[in-house]
Formats: sequence, structure tokens, C-alpha cells
Amino acid sequence: MDPDEFRDFGKAAVDYIADYFKNIRKLPVLSSVEPGYLSASLPELPPKTGEKWRKVFTDVDNMIIPGLTHWHSPHFHAYFPTANSYPGIVGELVLSGLGCLSKDWESNPACVELEVRVMDWLCKMLGLPECFLNESEGPGGGVIQNAASESTLVGLLCGRQRSVKTMLAKNPHLTAEEIRGKLVAYTSKESNSSVEKASLLASVPMRLLPTDNQCRLRGSTLREAVEKDKADGLIPCCVVASLGTTGTCSIDELEELGIVCKENDIWLHVDAAYAGAALVCPEYRHLMKGVEYTDSFNFNPHKWFLTNSDCSAMWFRNTKDAEEAFKVKSTIQEEPQYEYEIEHWQIPNCRRFRALKLWFVMRIYGVQGIQKHIRHQVGLAKYFEKLVRNDERYEVLISCLGVVCFRLKGEDQLTQKLLDRIAERKKLFIMPYYIQSKLVIRFVICSRLTEREDIDYAWNEIISLTPVTRKQLSNAPIQTVRRTLSLKNAGSIVNKGIVTDINDKIKVELFI
Amino acid sequence: MDPDEFRDFGKAAVDYIADYFKNIRKLPVLSSVEPGYLSASLPELPPKTGEKWRKVFTDVDNMIIPGLTHWHSPHFHAYFPTANSYPGIVGELVLSGLGCLSKDWESNPACVELEVRVMDWLCKMLGLPECFLNESEGPGGGVIQNAASESTLVGLLCGRQRSVKTMLAKNPHLTAEEIRGKLVAYTSKESNSSVEKASLLASVPMRLLPTDNQCRLRGSTLREAVEKDKADGLIPCCVVASLGTTGTCSIDELEELGIVCKENDIWLHVDAAYAGAALVCPEYRHLMKGVEYTDSFNFNPHKWFLTNSDCSAMWFRNTKDAEEAFKVKSTIQEEPQYEYEIEHWQIPNCRRFRALKLWFVMRIYGVQGIQKHIRHQVGLAKYFEKLVRNDERYEVLISCLGVVCFRLKGEDQLTQKLLDRIAERKKLFIMPYYIQSKLVIRFVICSRLTEREDIDYAWNEIISLTPVTRKQLSNAPIQTVRRTLSLKNAGSIVNKGIVTDINDKIKVELFI
Repeated sequence: MDPDEFRDFGKAAVDYIADYFKNIRKLPVLSSVEPGYLSASLPELPPKTGEKWRKVFTDVDNMIIPGLTHWHSPHFHAYFPTANSYPGIVGELVLSGLGCLSKDWESNPACVELEVRVMDWLCKMLGLPECFLNESEGPGGGVIQNAASESTLVGLLCGRQRSVKTMLAKNPHLTAEEIRGKLVAYTSKESNSSVEKASLLASVPMRLLPTDNQCRLRGSTLREAVEKDKADGLIPCCVVASLGTTGTCSIDELEELGIVCKENDIWLHVDAAYAGAALVCPEYRHLMKGVEYTDSFNFNPHKWFLTNSDCSAMWFRNTKDAEEAFKVKSTIQEEPQYEYEIEHWQIPNCRRFRALKLWFVMRIYGVQGIQKHIRHQVGLAKYFEKLVRNDERYEVLISCLGVVCFRLKGEDQLTQKLLDRIAERKKLFIMPYYIQSKLVIRFVICSRLTEREDIDYAWNEIISLTPVTRKQLSNAPIQTVRRTLSLKNAGSIVNKGIVTDINDKIKVELFI
Repeated sequence: MDPDEFRDFGKAAVDYIADYFKNIRKLPVLSSVEPGYLSASLPELPPKTGEKWRKVFTDVDNMIIPGLTHWHSPHFHAYFPTANSYPGIVGELVLSGLGCLSKDWESNPACVELEVRVMDWLCKMLGLPECFLNESEGPGGGVIQNAASESTLVGLLCGRQRSVKTMLAKNPHLTAEEIRGKLVAYTSKESNSSVEKASLLASVPMRLLPTDNQCRLRGSTLREAVEKDKADGLIPCCVVASLGTTGTCSIDELEELGIVCKENDIWLHVDAAYAGAALVCPEYRHLMKGVEYTDSFNFNPHKWFLTNSDCSAMWFRNTKDAEEAFKVKSTIQEEPQYEYEIEHWQIPNCRRFRALKLWFVMRIYGVQGIQKHIRHQVGLAKYFEKLVRNDERYEVLISCLGVVCFRLKGEDQLTQKLLDRIAERKKLFIMPYYIQSKLVIRFVICSRLTEREDIDYAWNEIISLTPVTRKQLSNAPIQTVRRTLSLKNAGSIVNKGIVTDINDKIKVELFI
């Protein structure tokens, strides 16, 4: 392909993407293909000679688009948002075009220095502790990782290494292997599955602790577990706390956990993969109360911060801990040219120039532009929540930021029936979840393109498929009241419910 | 940013990249900035309000380009190639624009199915064992990882898990912790530093074994180490072999190593990060003799296979081993919809749609296009090698594929002086290396844009800075002969050298 063809191909791709977003509401969010659909249409061998790019592009339309789940459809309300923005896309294009990687500073000064600076910008934008800043006098600093799962693993490995080092100093008769065999880590049952995976990888058993009725891990629970393990001769080394659990976006009680960690010399890693982006708005910073206790903190700009994947931000209170854990002897420079050796704060050898796209996003949106995005999306969630609460057949169990967990009152089977119908029609993509053994629908504002009309669309789809009518409800007032009462008693979740009318129209206000 | 602005911005970026490559020879491959240069020009805080994209683009020119090491400059001969091609760039743009990730099949059928198919295409293109194919009847399969370092870690963790499982079955009185405390792994001193890092992460000690005079790990060396460790009560679990070491592109003796691994039930992981791409040409497949013994095999299409970073291909003989090591209970589906659960063959939760760019590259180049690229680059290396060999002041110690390791005859200080001069002028980027304690210059064909004229440019730069003239050499024939003889005796490296003239012009032919 010659440069002129590249110009044509690249510009056609830009138009293709713009058109894709323009028409995205016309595409079904979920595909209807059967497993194995692609092997039927794609040859078993690659072409011997090169093909024209226009033909490949046609095949994207014919073979790929029909099999895609459109993660940026305004009707995609599953998982969490995956960032996508125009500045982010062009940022990715430019960094990919320049194709410059970096290792140490000498290998690419601009890549390393821009990353150091934008991580400081980000730290300040979120109001994180100053000790995390690269430019701070202390040993703290921030770096871009691939993913939250990798950051969790990095945090756990740092905690493991710190404990081994401390215990070796205190118990010179023990070997590192003996100490590693006694290590144990903690997280809540509600944390992301990647935390458990990190524990498999690091060979550190992970206790999945129970949460309170808001799905939050509490200090007392942690303290009890730590004390029991210590009594059994084990060595607690790391806690992975969630600032926004995957299921319900619940916020672990950082301050309570932090105190226990501090008392027991345990590494505290905070996984704020999704919710961390909200800290750009001062009104949400109360969510991170206790953050001053954390040893490492991670959030993904590639989730809710408009920066295309991959881009996962991680800060350390003391980057020397990371260097202790990851620095391979053969790569140590006696006199590094640059004061930040960020290449030793990560697992891979090389880094893509991801700082460039983050820089594009921060500059072209500005702080206010990103705040506006977060507030708009939270507003959409609140609007959806209001629609749900205004329908007496439904109850909202937990709602935080862009995540609303709701269900049909009564037995799970009603909600299950609704979920089945929604899945069958493929007009919305939403996921089920369980809160304290109750089936809920997890509705998340994901796409940057989602607007109020899309929320109305979603709600209309939901109520049109709701397997119980308002009339059925009003014909069975006693049953309904019973349900409401049992809800109040499930109180673990719902603390207070006011039934204002049990006859024609039942209005239930729940305060959670 | 509205869609029309995106079209303008995106197309301007496409032109920017095309122009960048057009003018890349005019840019110094290495920058002249001082550490900390960027913090002086970039504000300490991000902008409050959004800025215009044209302004950001201007700053790329003003702030970023001057601080870059241009990894795609035809004068970049350091490290290894980093892939960059027009189809790869547009592939990255399109996948970034669609912004679709995947987890399991349901989360995105097209993403998962295309990856399964292109990994099979790739397996066939390289002539790898059929048992690695996803479509094979057995449990083998392939998946795209982030990086070779990650693949090495994955291989090591699989080996660790398999040994723990086997030993637990044989020794029910032992615990998994006790077994893990006895595990040990092996690689050569010449392998990439990421292998040592993987050992730190996995808490499995890694023996860095000596190599033969061609920098290859041999079976006899491995066997001796394994037997010693077993005699000491340790459990050998994994060997990481290099198909192309980082320093000299040496090829470990896979067949010899494989036999030892098979006899001792040791996981054999092959790191072919760079050299694996050459297997697309049948004439290089002899390099992987013994590959049938490997349990996992990795090469990076993002190195020498024209696919922009990141894209690291990894195959397993038995994907169930990976699932044993990585599958977190909470993510297990009782009845998965699709037969390939590739999400359990990797560390992260989510995967970008990297298969798309690999597909673009394979289709637009075709098999022959990629073969042509490899052969062209090997041809350039051979051309460079000939230039070096034709100058009696120089000797080539090892040359394989696109890597040529050469030095000035005599003491290291001559070569060091040359390296210092080259570094000072910044016209070329090359790296030093040590072969059996001898300083060499490692010259690698990296950029896709490199042509014969660039090799001449490099060689002219080198000879213009060479700190010894031919005349000096001819005035000191005895010394020269002595050098040549000692070289023959260093024979570890050079097996044969013929001195045809020791007076006016010395011609030395070395066969290695």
C-alpha cells in the first residue's frame, strides 16, 4: 500500500466511523448470529496475494458488523461504560501512526515525560492525595497500565513483596518461600473477578469477605478476618478495596479499612476502575473518604473518562515498593538519566504512547468538558431511577452514579421473566445481578451518545415487556402490601418504605 | 467535538501521519532534549475549558516531535523492529472507532470468532504444529495477548499450575503451598529480561543457564541443571526457550531442550517474539526444529509482522492447562455458548478487537506480501553484513535474520570509542551488547521504510567515525595477524578465519 492509498483508506475509515456513530441507533445492540457464524463465511486460509482495501472494508460491513455487540450503542446498558470519544479515537490514530514505544527515558523522552505530566494532571483533576504526584517531593508517582486487572495484580504483588521484606527483617530465621507460603489477602465478595484471578496468579490466597447490606466491605469484617488469620499464624499482606463494585457500584468503607490496614501493615489497593472518573466532580469526592490510607490507587480512563482503551491509571504512595517488586537486576541502570523510572512500575517491558491520547482528551474536553460528561450521565441514571420509582411494580435496590439496580417486586421469577423477554427481543443489552440473593436488573449508562430519548426508549421497552400489569397489582392489594412489608424486613437492603396508597394506585417510596 | 469536526480532525491526522513518514529521514532519529524538557513547556494543570484540536496538533509538532526517538526512522537500528504499516494503522483506527471489546462469546461474537480464525490463519502461515490450531480436534488453541512478557508469564504460570496439580496427585500428603515452594524454572542467560521478571511475579526461581558459543541454550546444560535440582528435592516446572534471543537473535536448541522437558514433565514455553515472524518463509522453518515439544509458543505480530502494537500471538498445546491456571470460579459458565473460551487463556478480563487489525494486515498484504517484507529486511541485513565483512578492521561475531553483531577487531575500547562517537552525533540509533564478554555493536533492521540507501548511510556514518584507519592497520601487520589468530581461538564464536593478505590490504573471511 503506497502513501496515497493510505490517505484514501485512512480518510474512508474516518468517515466510516463518523457514519457508524450517526447510524448506531439503527443497529440492533445485540447481534443475532449463531455461534460459529464467521467460520462459514471466512476462508480457512489467508489470501496468498494482497487484496484491495475496499474489499476488506466491504467485508467489515458484511461479516463483522452483523456479529458485533455494539458497545457504544445508546441501548447498551451492560457491564460498565467503555470510553470512546472523537479526541480519544484520533489520539489512538496518531499514537499508532507515530508508532513510538518507550522503555526508559533514553528510549523515548517525549513518551516518558508526557506520561509523567499527564498522570499528575489526572491526579490533580481527581483531587487525589498529593503524595501520589510524580512531581511531589516524596517517592509517590503515577503510571499508565493496560487494565484494572493488571493494576490489581501489580498492587497485590507490591503488597506481597513488602510483607516478605518486612517479615524477613523481623524473622531472619525464615526463608522468603516460607513467608510467601503464609501470606493471605482480602477483598469483598462483591469485588471484580479479576481480584480473584490476581490471587491465583500471585499465589496469595484471597479471602472473599461478606459485605454489609449496601454491598460494602466494612472495617469490622476485615478486622475480624485479619485477627483470625494472624491467630492461625498467617501473614495478612494486602487488601483490595472497591471504589465502585462491579455489580452495584457500591463503595467500600475506605476509611474503616484503611485504619485496619495501617494497624496491621497491610498494603491497601483501591480499585476505582469505573467510579474513579466521577472524582473529577468535587461533589463526588466524598466517595473516596479515607483515600489517604491507600498504598496504590487505580482507575480506568478507558472506562468513563472518554479515553479509548487501553488506558488504566495507577498511582503509588511509594514507587520504590513497585521497583522492589518488579525491577529485574539486568535492567538496573546505575545512573538513570531521568528521575522517574516508570518502566519499573509495570509488568511489560515496553509501553505504547498512551499518554498522547489521554493528553488529547484532557485538552480538547478540558476539565469542565469531562465534568459535564460525568454529570450528564449521572443525570440520565437519576432520570431512569425516577421512572422506575414512579412505577409501583418496581423497586430500586441500589443506585450509585451511572448504575441503577432495580427489580420487579415479589418473587425473582417475575424479574427473570422480564429479563428473558428483553434478551429475546435484543433491543436492549442489560445484565442480571444478585443483591443479597435477590435477582435484580443492573442498568448502566454506558454510551457517550446516550440521551434522554434513549432512556425513554429503554424504559418503554422494559414496561412493554413487564410480566405484570398495574391492574393486576391493584387487584391484589393485600398481596402487594405483603410484598412491601417483606421488603422492609429484608431491610438489609431497604431501610424504610412508605406505602401511601394500597388501593387503586400504589405509591411506594423507598429510602435506601 | 461534533462529528464534522471529528471528520476534519481525523483526516488531518491521516495526512499528518502520511507526511510524517514522507519526511521521516529529515528528522534526527534521536532527540537532543534534556531530561525534564517537557515540564518546562507543559502547564502544571490541565486546561479548564476545552481547546481547539488544531492547537493541540500544533503542540504535537512543537513539544512532542522534538522529544521523540523515532522508532520508525530508517536510521533506527536498536532493540527490535516495532511493527507499523498502513493497513495496521487503519486497522487500529477502525477497531478503536468501533470501540468494541469482548469478554465471552456472548459479549461480542464477531470479536471472539475473528480472533479464533485469524489465529488459525497465523498458525498455518508459520507452519506451526497443527495441534495449536483452534480448529484442530484436540485441546490446542491460540489467542492474542498484549505482549511477549505477558505471554512468558502466562506460560510460566501454566507450567507452575500443571506441576502443582501433578505433584499433588502423586503426593497427597503435601500441600499446594509446599509444592510451590519447591518449584524451579530455567532459561538461558541470553533470554529477555522479561523472563526474569516473570519469575519474580510468579514467585518461581529462574535459573539463568549458560549458553554455548553461539549464545544458544543446549540440552546438556539444561539436563545437568534439572538433575541437580531434582537431587536437591526441588521440582522443575518450566523452561522458557528463546527462538531468537534479544541480544543476538540466537536460537536455543529446541529439540534438545524438548527431550529433556518431555522426560521430566516440564512445561516448555518458546519465546519467538521477534524471529517467529520469519517462519512465514519456509526457508527459515528449520529454525524451529523441535517445536513439536513445546507446550506454549509466542511471537509478536507487533514486532516484525507489520501489525501495529499491541498484538502478541500465543498458542497452547492444551488450552485446558491455561483454563486450570486462570479460570476464576465466579466466571465459569455451565454451558458456554461457544466452544472456545479464549477469555480464560489470558490475564485481563476484557480484550480489545485486536484481531481486526491483524486481519487487515493479512488480507491487504497477503501471505506473499509479508514474506516479501521479511525477505527484503533479511536481505538488507545480509547486505550490511557484507559491507562489514569487506572492511578488514571489522569482524562479525553473530548474524541471524535481521540482526548483525559486529565489532572492531582488537580491544573493546576501540568499539566503545566508536559507539561513543555514534551516540554523540545521533545520526544512528544502535545499541551495544556483549557476546562472551566481548563488546559488540548490535545492528538491527527495524523500520519498514529502511532501504539499501539507508544501509549505505549507516555504514558511511560508521566508517567515518571508526577510530582506526585502514592504513594504521596495514602498518601493523603483525599485530593484525595476532588479532586474527586470537579470534580463531576465541573459536567459541568464530570457527574459521582465513587471512589472505597481511600486507597492503588485509582480507579476512570468517565463517561462523
